Amino acid sequence: MKNYFAKRMDNVNPSAIDELLALGADPSIISFGGGYPDASLFPKQMLNQVFNEIINDPTGSTMQYAPSDGLPTLREKIATLMNEDGTPCSIDDILVLQGSQQGIDLAARMLINPGDTLITEDPTFLGALLAFNPNQPNYAAIPMDENGMKMDVLEETLKSNPKSKLIYTIPDFQNPTGVTMSIERRKELINLANFYDVIILEDTPYRHIRFEGQNLPTLRSLDTENRVIHLGSFSKILVPGLRIGWALAEKSLLKKMSLLKVAADTQTSTLNMAATNLFLERFDLFSHIEKLRHAYLIKKELMLKEITKHFPKNIKITNPSGGLFTWVTFDTTFDTTQFMKEIALSEAKVAYVPGGSFFPVKEQRHHARINFSSQPENLIKKGIEALGQSIRNYEKRNTN
Amino acid sequence: MKNYFAKRMDNVNPSAIDELLALGADPSIISFGGGYPDASLFPKQMLNQVFNEIINDPTGSTMQYAPSDGLPTLREKIATLMNEDGTPCSIDDILVLQGSQQGIDLAARMLINPGDTLITEDPTFLGALLAFNPNQPNYAAIPMDENGMKMDVLEETLKSNPKSKLIYTIPDFQNPTGVTMSIERRKELINLANFYDVIILEDTPYRHIRFEGQNLPTLRSLDTENRVIHLGSFSKILVPGLRIGWALAEKSLLKKMSLLKVAADTQTSTLNMAATNLFLERFDLFSHIEKLRHAYLIKKELMLKEITKHFPKNIKITNPSGGLFTWVTFDTTFDTTQFMKEIALSEAKVAYVPGGSFFPVKEQRHHARINFSSQPENLIKKGIEALGQSIRNYEKRNTN
Repeated sequence: MKNYFAKRMDNVNPSAIDELLALGADPSIISFGGGYPDASLFPKQMLNQVFNEIINDPTGSTMQYAPSDGLPTLREKIATLMNEDGTPCSIDDILVLQGSQQGIDLAARMLINPGDTLITEDPTFLGALLAFNPNQPNYAAIPMDENGMKMDVLEETLKSNPKSKLIYTIPDFQNPTGVTMSIERRKELINLANFYDVIILEDTPYRHIRFEGQNLPTLRSLDTENRVIHLGSFSKILVPGLRIGWALAEKSLLKKMSLLKVAADTQTSTLNMAATNLFLERFDLFSHIEKLRHAYLIKKELMLKEITKHFPKNIKITNPSGGLFTWVTFDTTFDTTQFMKEIALSEAKVAYVPGGSFFPVKEQRHHARINFSSQPENLIKKGIEALGQSIRNYEKRNTN
Repeated sequence: MKNYFAKRMDNVNPSAIDELLALGADPSIISFGGGYPDASLFPKQMLNQVFNEIINDPTGSTMQYAPSDGLPTLREKIATLMNEDGTPCSIDDILVLQGSQQGIDLAARMLINPGDTLITEDPTFLGALLAFNPNQPNYAAIPMDENGMKMDVLEETLKSNPKSKLIYTIPDFQNPTGVTMSIERRKELINLANFYDVIILEDTPYRHIRFEGQNLPTLRSLDTENRVIHLGSFSKILVPGLRIGWALAEKSLLKKMSLLKVAADTQTSTLNMAATNLFLERFDLFSHIEKLRHAYLIKKELMLKEITKHFPKNIKITNPSGGLFTWVTFDTTFDTTQFMKEIALSEAKVAYVPGGSFFPVKEQRHHARINFSSQPENLIKKGIEALGQSIRNYEKRNTN
């Protein structure tokens, strides 16, 4: 077949990890790959009650078409959540999305011309890069330390890239590193965005999965010039299968996103919006979140303990104060992609996400993203022990 | 705020009818505007049973993340549906979508470069135009008669537009006109697409809402060179609130759509895919569709009778053999947009969709799309009588 594809599709190709993760779907493999919440903690009984009630709505309106911006009752409740979290907003500032992934896609389509500079953390969320790619941006990637994006490098980048349009960041328990941006850096980021006149896309899917301390202020709450597009999601705090996320942004930006949303899929599922709304009405989301925090903290501690015990001594791991991931850095000679393909899947029967795909500009192949939320404790132990054993055997073979 | 928007957003603006339809949302107004199925016919009890069962799945997998191409069990069942409808395919040819609207958006993004010629029926579905617009196509619109797109005009258009890339068509009970493309025209369309080497996007949301006779062959089933992207939807035959549609296409095209789908929203709701799958497993979709066909036929006949009785004698109406809409053509001096804004909503308290927005190239303002599926019979009578009265009064005033 001849090439009918639009130019933008040059950047839309299967990623190297698709193939690997497909292999990881083999049920005999213990996967620390996906960013899956723990399905045993899903609030089944409550969701069952909620769906029962909405499907029996006498008007049938919960199964009918609904406004494309989202059910007003749900938008109102999301605005309340955001206000309680310290980010002032009203219902008119909220657009319901098909997961926050849709917000990344719509924001990029709204803002990025081919050749515009798009700034991300280095490494960053692979799903965001997939959404950005068809818009043909030039990426600039900002290295991080334990306080998040390095602001001196960001400033240099903004200074030397006058076509900078958008900064994408996951300030809380970043994907893939688990790092949280400090309050000082948040304020500096806002100042730099104001000075260099760029939009910030703040992605917060893990924000409420915090193991200790208080939430740091959202970038949106620190925003003095209405230039932060904030994205939120129920995927990690309720269930991912509902696909309910949201955007909160300045009105002219939100209006254009809303127009793209209608064009993209008419609307998010009415049933799922109504179910989420009724869940928030009937139940206390934050007492459910407390359970998740407790369970994931235990799993994180176990994961770090097991990795420390079984992996080579020269690795580095992040110790995230929330979220779903830790980021393991090996000796620079250790290629995590090659190791997974040749050994981890077949010998250890364990999957993780090789770090390479998370780097938008220059791939580093000696990292791995390891999820600690999805597997039960016995499989965390078993999987990490097997993986550590394989790594040590491999290193021994290569040293001899 | 300065203009941060990408160039493609020049074409993304609120449509004239948004404002009108927002007014039509007033509950005191009888709306024949939206393409809504009749909510009183939703299979509540069956859906309730299905959701109960899937939420209680012991693994929680129906609420977890799922493959972005769709649940394999559902893709398999959709393939079976398509085969039973005379369109050969296998599970690998099916991509589950967030409604067929998403297929329009993804296909356009995959294929259309700015300036490419995109051919549609004239008039055509407004939602498709909204999805096409950000890709900055040049539209060519092909007039229709009672057998659909005029093939002689299409051939002239293809000949004189070497940058033609895509033909978008709704062959069954077209939106907005209700017209069905004849079998001869379908074959001719395939021949022309082959000869001029363009892709066809076949959109079939109303296909199974047929009042008489047998389904005509899909364009995809007549396709000899794998150049038809077929879109289907459960919105009109099950419930719209699930947002489940699908694409069926040649593998390299489907692969690129699948990559854009991951980037756009990760996946369609797992719960809704699982519910649709289980509905198809437990119940006979076609016995449910039989009920819809019967009910909508009665409503269509009532609608046509009432329009004939109450509207001016010089109008033309289409008599669709399926679907949800009839298309009313007034005297060319009658402006349906202006009339709705100034009189229909306030005096008759009735909404319809003014025809103007459905024309991609040259607006014709003397048509109206009237939906006959959503309102109960007493309101069809009441609404059409009131609307007819207002039209006749208006014409009387303008003649005097």
